[in-house]
Amino acid sequence: MTSTTSARPPGRPRSGVNDVVFATTLSTVHELGYARATVDRIAAAAGVAKTTIYRRWPSKGALIVDCLLDAFGPVPLEGSSRTELMSSAVRWIAAKIGEPGVGDAFAGVFSDAVSDPDLREVLSRRLQDPYRIALQEALGEPESRVLFFIDVVVGTLLHRMGMTGEPMVDADVDALVEMVLAYFSDGAGQT
Amino acid sequence: MTSTTSARPPGRPRSGVNDVVFATTLSTVHELGYARATVDRIAAAAGVAKTTIYRRWPSKGALIVDCLLDAFGPVPLEGSSRTELMSSAVRWIAAKIGEPGVGDAFAGVFSDAVSDPDLREVLSRRLQDPYRIALQEALGEPESRVLFFIDVVVGTLLHRMGMTGEPMVDADVDALVEMVLAYFSDGAGQT
Repeated sequence: MTSTTSARPPGRPRSGVNDVVFATTLSTVHELGYARATVDRIAAAAGVAKTTIYRRWPSKGALIVDCLLDAFGPVPLEGSSRTELMSSAVRWIAAKIGEPGVGDAFAGVFSDAVSDPDLREVLSRRLQDPYRIALQEALGEPESRVLFFIDVVVGTLLHRMGMTGEPMVDADVDALVEMVLAYFSDGAGQT
Repeated sequence: MTSTTSARPPGRPRSGVNDVVFATTLSTVHELGYARATVDRIAAAAGVAKTTIYRRWPSKGALIVDCLLDAFGPVPLEGSSRTELMSSAVRWIAAKIGEPGVGDAFAGVFSDAVSDPDLREVLSRRLQDPYRIALQEALGEPESRVLFFIDVVVGTLLHRMGMTGEPMVDADVDALVEMVLAYFSDGAGQT
């Protein structure tokens, strides 16, 4: 797992099972859609016992979140300037959301969260916080501005996927980068 | 119905049934969450026969779309300048998404659409197009730019709702207006 927020528990190595489950989760979501990609179906497709999955992930949302963390990996924080950093972060998440199953899973778990406070807490703390904190530190921006940055970038990309079924095309990702950079560069007086 | 794209069919007036069904849909979504607000539950809560509902709306998505059209009404196109117009449109949809059940329904039908091409077509043609066309005409902007404007504004607002369970607070709606106005005003050379 590439999540930076969880230590690997002691005992027999589990990365094999996680890898199979995560890969199967994304392909099942891609194939059946988020709603019909139930944990039971994922377990069956992965050839993993349901009990094994339920033991590690108490809910579908928790599984999807770990699957997304694994698919995303760490946000790239390269760039000699804030604008390069923001630009590469936007393009990175745009590309991730374009990967098969990832955009569907992200949009799906997101919608479930609108009416599920526990899942919202998992999304916020486990999925969003590592990236939010990394961006705050790299950009030297306060939490509220980074949260807004994330709303704009992720929100726009997911809306485009929802309306068209396809990831946002490069020309529009360029427009998103331009708009965001103009706003966040001016606001902090830095480039 | 306040939708401008459908003529009222002949025959006995139906506005009473629609009003009850739309109000019940929003309250049921607000109370149970989008996934558990099934058409059967909505029919029962509304005291309307399931056959009546299924006859008018062939799917849950179609019902939700008409319910949202009714809740939104026409986009306000007041303002003596493009900036006033864009600003009022952003604040209008921010307020609508904040209404009980509306944000949940919008996010919910949106997520279903990611993996349902038929529902995407209904969302795009029936829910989005009237507003897109009205904005294109009022702003004098081409379709691709208005689609991007909608992705940014609606996407950001729905992401905030999904992550916090609450509509975006006024200070951040102000930031959204500022960012969008800066980008779209400069781009077209108009204010």
